[in-house]
Amino acid sequence: MEQSPLHDILNPKSIAFMGGSNSIENVGTSQLLNIVRGGFKGKVYPVHPREKEIMGLKAYPRIVELPEVADVAIMVIPNHAVPQALEDCGKKGIKRAVIITAGYEEMGAEGHRLQQHLLEIAKKHDIRFLGPNCIGVINAHIALNTTWFAHLYKPGGVGIISQSGSYVTQTLPYFGHLGLGLSKAISVGNQADIDMVDGLEYLGQDAQTKAIALYIEGLKRPRSFLQTARNITPRKPIVALYVGGTEAGRRAAQSHTGSISGPDELYEGLFRQCGILRARSLTELFDWSLALAQQPLPNGNRMVVLTNSGGPATSMADECSRHGLAVPPFDSQTQERIRGMTPDTASAKNPIDITMNYDLDLIFNRLPELTLSLKDFDGMLFYGIFGPIHFEHKKTMAHGLIHIPIDFLRDWMTKVCQTFVTYPERYRKPILCSCFCGREDEAVAFLQDAGIPVYPTPGRAVRAMAALWKYQKIRKGND
Amino acid sequence: MEQSPLHDILNPKSIAFMGGSNSIENVGTSQLLNIVRGGFKGKVYPVHPREKEIMGLKAYPRIVELPEVADVAIMVIPNHAVPQALEDCGKKGIKRAVIITAGYEEMGAEGHRLQQHLLEIAKKHDIRFLGPNCIGVINAHIALNTTWFAHLYKPGGVGIISQSGSYVTQTLPYFGHLGLGLSKAISVGNQADIDMVDGLEYLGQDAQTKAIALYIEGLKRPRSFLQTARNITPRKPIVALYVGGTEAGRRAAQSHTGSISGPDELYEGLFRQCGILRARSLTELFDWSLALAQQPLPNGNRMVVLTNSGGPATSMADECSRHGLAVPPFDSQTQERIRGMTPDTASAKNPIDITMNYDLDLIFNRLPELTLSLKDFDGMLFYGIFGPIHFEHKKTMAHGLIHIPIDFLRDWMTKVCQTFVTYPERYRKPILCSCFCGREDEAVAFLQDAGIPVYPTPGRAVRAMAALWKYQKIRKGND
Repeated sequence: MEQSPLHDILNPKSIAFMGGSNSIENVGTSQLLNIVRGGFKGKVYPVHPREKEIMGLKAYPRIVELPEVADVAIMVIPNHAVPQALEDCGKKGIKRAVIITAGYEEMGAEGHRLQQHLLEIAKKHDIRFLGPNCIGVINAHIALNTTWFAHLYKPGGVGIISQSGSYVTQTLPYFGHLGLGLSKAISVGNQADIDMVDGLEYLGQDAQTKAIALYIEGLKRPRSFLQTARNITPRKPIVALYVGGTEAGRRAAQSHTGSISGPDELYEGLFRQCGILRARSLTELFDWSLALAQQPLPNGNRMVVLTNSGGPATSMADECSRHGLAVPPFDSQTQERIRGMTPDTASAKNPIDITMNYDLDLIFNRLPELTLSLKDFDGMLFYGIFGPIHFEHKKTMAHGLIHIPIDFLRDWMTKVCQTFVTYPERYRKPILCSCFCGREDEAVAFLQDAGIPVYPTPGRAVRAMAALWKYQKIRKGND
Repeated sequence: MEQSPLHDILNPKSIAFMGGSNSIENVGTSQLLNIVRGGFKGKVYPVHPREKEIMGLKAYPRIVELPEVADVAIMVIPNHAVPQALEDCGKKGIKRAVIITAGYEEMGAEGHRLQQHLLEIAKKHDIRFLGPNCIGVINAHIALNTTWFAHLYKPGGVGIISQSGSYVTQTLPYFGHLGLGLSKAISVGNQADIDMVDGLEYLGQDAQTKAIALYIEGLKRPRSFLQTARNITPRKPIVALYVGGTEAGRRAAQSHTGSISGPDELYEGLFRQCGILRARSLTELFDWSLALAQQPLPNGNRMVVLTNSGGPATSMADECSRHGLAVPPFDSQTQERIRGMTPDTASAKNPIDITMNYDLDLIFNRLPELTLSLKDFDGMLFYGIFGPIHFEHKKTMAHGLIHIPIDFLRDWMTKVCQTFVTYPERYRKPILCSCFCGREDEAVAFLQDAGIPVYPTPGRAVRAMAALWKYQKIRKGND
């Protein structure tokens, strides 16, 4: 199989960067800074018509003067300068480019002509390029980030292909909050040359990518997309958000990436044929991808709901019923055993609600071990994380008035969580959690970093679990 | 009109507190700490059989020995001790109680009997009480918080009545993240005496409550609920989440609050008759309440979508179409004016996408002033907040390599935001924003604190706007 043109773009040993300067006022400077100072270990050659040195690196006036043939050229330059830059790449022998510059297909007829011109030059020199009108790529596993947002993400298993640069740039802090780890992110922009199908082929093969998230305004090659996606979904999940299916969405998509969108039903049918999970919002797109990338699939739809609180217990049970998951009562023997372990006011049927108390061994270890080992249950929805931050707040408030043993509580929480995070692998069943605190709570951060998704509401955890089950059915060919 | 029994519970001048001690191991201690150190200005009388002093306050062995008749007694004591405590309240002349203790109706037949016994004692002494099996109340405007979570909230316009204590306790950090300000929060628990209808009557009259959020597992008095809600919704919005309408939800609700739930369609019809907006998730419940409490209603469904990014622009346009909002193109004259103000690569039709640049005057002031003054448009969805935190990240990364004028950017952002937040009132049109950064971004915090909701995703802003429009139609009697 031919190597994907994305391979060198995502794994360059050397980058020629056109458009960065020593002034932050250029967008390109932020992007170059991310490459130079973001942990990327390859060589970086700034190209600039006047500057001799940029960010401490020797700058070259033209690409043809670089001391080596860079693996990729990244361009954040005015669009009238792009054709010559591409020609220069050709002369130098550079075969891959990322054209971040906008002002092409999305601008109507004149933009279309300009974009065609780029394609001709690229073809002449056998160059494959990403963009134009994109934000480039992230390869989290080699700390390469060509976007202009700082590195508020961690390496992980979610690969993203997006027609919106913002959804792989401005979303980085959002991924950070969610504890979502990225493998690769590819902003395809106008898809003049390399398109979403190329992206899918690449991420389909990429070992670090465990789940693929797509943001689609309009596909250029629906038939190839169908074939490619079909080959991937039996072994790797794909979640897609399509926004071109309404009148306003279609019009906005055309202004944004020059995309020709199709009717919603057409994409609905396409996704179904490919075995792609269709997300209805960005929230779902990222929530589901996170769970799919990190958790084992449930073998059935029967969930244990374990909480220390009746509201989340009831909400999750209700939400399960609405999304194809079951919360069957435990058999009487199991209920008996649960009652033996829990306070009098607890509920032992399923959901289990241990009610407000701070028996961390019980909720994090003893009850999960009991219920996850039941062969009639396929996964667990968990609500009941209250890490040290709550006691820190209390301590601040108490200001010496009463004693609060923070260190004891922290150690205890760490200990029970260390065991808890081993359960998905040990029992081969998914666990999804939720907590109204974010990563400011150490326990939330610990669980997320150990691979257990913790969502901001109980309902989002349930819907992500429903996506796991839906994908399992797709994989088994029952959906 | 008779004064609501909730008046004294939410606005006590003095509180008798039973169940707190000097040890944090008692749940009651956390709750007492919140009252004592949370900013509440009234008197607090700890009642304890043995302790002479709790948190520096004189403790009394029994309620009958208090130096005055407290406005309310709060009980976090074992349930065998509650009847005597209620009798003591009666003897002392205390007419209001909050019974946090659990182990009643939710526990089946024996619990039912115990709960009936409390009702009898209360009736005998003319006591009205909240609970049992609740978490009490918050009155943010007098810094009264009887729950056991610290004060991670601010005073504001959202009033909550919840059958789940967790949704007015554990959600406090979530409200904090969302910038949601509380007026009052009432955890009704088992609703043995004071119930959701009483809560509605109270919040319907409460001037500080601008929107009411309900979490319902099952109503005790559906007919009174209907009448009460009907009287409120023409002047104050109500949003409800009902979770008792599925088999699993019903079963969990009964274990949680002893609620008898009804079929989903019944509640659906009830909400429709009352003019209540039905939320399908906690996310919607709080998102919508926030917007309804803080923003003017749109007079129509025609939205300006203003962004600096094509992905959010397209997503929002698509989401508007799917939720009853329109994003009509501007007339050609307006488009001309917008093109005159924006970069060449911008889109001027609606959505407006100024594309990536940092002209804060343009996106925060000049374009909103132009488009909000158009009489054919009814509200604005805004995406484009990038506050100082991004540049702080860059500065940290650059570490002196290039100059980043943080102070200049911060001052500029503050200036444009100060004007921006005056627009909803000036134009009498709602503005809802979204940003993938949370309150760690000063600009997000500034806007939220000035009353403009900023949601974590573009789609959530759109769906909240759709709720504003839906409520406007309800108010006008067209829905």
